[in-house]
Amino acid sequence: MIKDITYDRKTITALKNIVGEKNIITDKEGIYAYTFDCSHTQQDYGKPVTVVFPETTKQVSSIIKFASQYNIPVIPRGAGTNHAGGCVPVCGGIILHFSKMNKIIDINPGDLTCRVQPGVVIGDLQKAAAKFGLYYPPDPSNLAVSTIGGGIALSSGGPRTFKYGTVKDYVIDLEIVMPDGAILHTGSNTAKNVTGLNLTQLIVGSEGTLAVVTEALLRLIPQPECKNVLLVYFNSLENAVNTVTSLLNNHLVPAVIDLIDKKTINTIEDFMPAGLLCDKEAALLIEIDGDSASVDFQMKKVNDLCLECGAANIICARNIEEQEKIWTARRSAFAACAKLAPNVITEDVVVPRSKISQLAAGIEKLAEKYGIITLIMGHIGDGNIHPNFALDLRDSAARIRFEQLKKELFELAASLGGTLSGEHGIGCQKAGYLNLVLSGETYGLMKKIKNVFDPKNIMNPGKFL
Amino acid sequence: MIKDITYDRKTITALKNIVGEKNIITDKEGIYAYTFDCSHTQQDYGKPVTVVFPETTKQVSSIIKFASQYNIPVIPRGAGTNHAGGCVPVCGGIILHFSKMNKIIDINPGDLTCRVQPGVVIGDLQKAAAKFGLYYPPDPSNLAVSTIGGGIALSSGGPRTFKYGTVKDYVIDLEIVMPDGAILHTGSNTAKNVTGLNLTQLIVGSEGTLAVVTEALLRLIPQPECKNVLLVYFNSLENAVNTVTSLLNNHLVPAVIDLIDKKTINTIEDFMPAGLLCDKEAALLIEIDGDSASVDFQMKKVNDLCLECGAANIICARNIEEQEKIWTARRSAFAACAKLAPNVITEDVVVPRSKISQLAAGIEKLAEKYGIITLIMGHIGDGNIHPNFALDLRDSAARIRFEQLKKELFELAASLGGTLSGEHGIGCQKAGYLNLVLSGETYGLMKKIKNVFDPKNIMNPGKFL
Repeated sequence: MIKDITYDRKTITALKNIVGEKNIITDKEGIYAYTFDCSHTQQDYGKPVTVVFPETTKQVSSIIKFASQYNIPVIPRGAGTNHAGGCVPVCGGIILHFSKMNKIIDINPGDLTCRVQPGVVIGDLQKAAAKFGLYYPPDPSNLAVSTIGGGIALSSGGPRTFKYGTVKDYVIDLEIVMPDGAILHTGSNTAKNVTGLNLTQLIVGSEGTLAVVTEALLRLIPQPECKNVLLVYFNSLENAVNTVTSLLNNHLVPAVIDLIDKKTINTIEDFMPAGLLCDKEAALLIEIDGDSASVDFQMKKVNDLCLECGAANIICARNIEEQEKIWTARRSAFAACAKLAPNVITEDVVVPRSKISQLAAGIEKLAEKYGIITLIMGHIGDGNIHPNFALDLRDSAARIRFEQLKKELFELAASLGGTLSGEHGIGCQKAGYLNLVLSGETYGLMKKIKNVFDPKNIMNPGKFL
Repeated sequence: MIKDITYDRKTITALKNIVGEKNIITDKEGIYAYTFDCSHTQQDYGKPVTVVFPETTKQVSSIIKFASQYNIPVIPRGAGTNHAGGCVPVCGGIILHFSKMNKIIDINPGDLTCRVQPGVVIGDLQKAAAKFGLYYPPDPSNLAVSTIGGGIALSSGGPRTFKYGTVKDYVIDLEIVMPDGAILHTGSNTAKNVTGLNLTQLIVGSEGTLAVVTEALLRLIPQPECKNVLLVYFNSLENAVNTVTSLLNNHLVPAVIDLIDKKTINTIEDFMPAGLLCDKEAALLIEIDGDSASVDFQMKKVNDLCLECGAANIICARNIEEQEKIWTARRSAFAACAKLAPNVITEDVVVPRSKISQLAAGIEKLAEKYGIITLIMGHIGDGNIHPNFALDLRDSAARIRFEQLKKELFELAASLGGTLSGEHGIGCQKAGYLNLVLSGETYGLMKKIKNVFDPKNIMNPGKFL
């Protein structure tokens, strides 16, 4: 039975006065849906929760002023696709849901920018930008639902990070509401800006722990004229890794260099037969983009280099349908994985690129040691691996084994000079492991900065700060 | 006569004990050379100054601990090429000169990174990276002398920013010494990282007001295989601006889109005859890079689009010598300008790209109003203009006129939605104009962050924070 975790009438009335009757959820069943995200973390129901849907920056400011007055936690939330518990109301509080602040305010082709509200779905922005021949590159796999606000909170990346960078490389200016309700801008309207401290980048990736983003000015780029995709199979993971190095050494900068291991190939093929070669140890999905002359040139060069590096088989897409088929297979990896066990947990560790073989080998060993089904995939060009663990979380023994595996996974990444997250953030799930990668001094400095923004600790408390 | 601004014997002895007898300047003539930079700002000699040349991070830490104990200002300094007075010891203090911390610690082609000390000259890093087929794109015009540390302090850009971004896009991790002497790291060793707040980007562009950078892990990219250059003349500035928009609308992303106006063309030609067309109103220097197939394809497309947009004349470099000839003309603009009057002041304002014509027209009006020779050049692709003002600063009437012009220039940039600096920083020269572009709340937040780092205000005081 769902416990009652609604707020008292006085609080609800005050919030209704700000956002209107229709923009608040107060019944326990309604609230329940917002007490977890994709991370299998859930609040423990000790503290009351409510969900509000502000429509303007002014409403956000009023809500936060009220929350500040009564020391109520505020948790900004986009689509709730977080994998680290970043938007779970672990201390209770007011969930600021941005689905009604989802307007693309303008797209400015002359300036190569757009101004958007945080609730805009990333895929929708991409479609709108495409009408102007423009492109917003940081697109996580779940771009059909995940939002700009969530992307900013995590500086999320996606497969095209290798060539195009992550969200941080596309945020020019933010309108934020401070934890006392003040509304301010962090940057300028210009592509370049060294006018004071870079407050913009302090907010990007801060997971809602400093302030609430209510509007963003984003950089767009001219859409690449053409693209094409190769799926390259290898008889060893080592060969796949060496191929990436060879591409870079030969001046090639593919838009995507993604890796899937044998188990992933087989799981996808079992789930949705796509003619993948299930006897191969690993495959690279390589996407090339640019002008038409360049794409042809690069495709040939990539093909030749892959063969030189011992590729066992190369599939070059001959048309858009074949490109889409390869991408569909790659994107279905997570869904395919979900057939293996009741729960799938996607992790996100990152190491210097040259350490990726050691990381992958280490993950395989951990999977064996703890008897947990593990699929390895990720953005090998960035040194970023997403191991997917399939298990039944209701089985407490499996849960304990997984917790131990996770700890060793983070220790492994740290020992290879890597860190805890490349694009999913820390949230509450990884907060306990920060000491593996941050010194006490560095973390202390972050804490002091948090205190400058949010002395009452009402902004997304119980997370990494 | 140079005034005596040396420190007392006790301070000098303490510093000598840290850095050694040979690594300190204590005579007034020696110190004098370090009391100004390229900005025509000079300290007023009210306070003592000394210059030390640390060789290790530990020495930097010891110096800063000592400075903190006695509340002595600390001013980090690279090559002193700053245009905004960022490294002038306006409050006196210890100048930390990084010319002896100038090692490229390693270049790692597998990880596409390098680890460097702040005193490394940018051009030297480019040469060293080129041996591995790698490239560090943010190269200001003075790359033969300016240093990585200075670039980090200002997030400096240069002509290739349009395609490749500024220093901020290449800094992965920094080793910093805090104003209490603590040594810490701001980031990770990985291309992607969302593990806590982005302290790295808080330091980049902070102009030495928060902490001292003693080591940097930088991102490198595979060197573009080929490049080529066009010099495109126009009969109106408007046509030049429209051409840029047309290139972007046609999916082209040149590495460089630089503008020079008629006065600049003529001044360069007078200084060093290069066959420039002096009757034209403006010229664009466009550099294309990429693989060989792409460069040919783009050159043709750029050429066609320029003609469509009313280009009066197009020079396409046919070989490396011709490319170099065009670049030499462009790079000599500043030196050429120096022939016009005893002093040349380079300004740095930035507006949204679509406002560049209005900015240029406004600058011309100001030049006329105040009777100051003004040459317009800059990185039009970024909306970033560097007006060069030639005058005699010993003429106090001219100086007053120039100060008034400068004020109106900043007001103009702000009124067009722009800001005070794209790549030269604020220093002490522009600190008084920050209220044109930053709200009291935003500036107040920066001040509070400064106070977290540097409660005694010893880090580069008297500047923008």
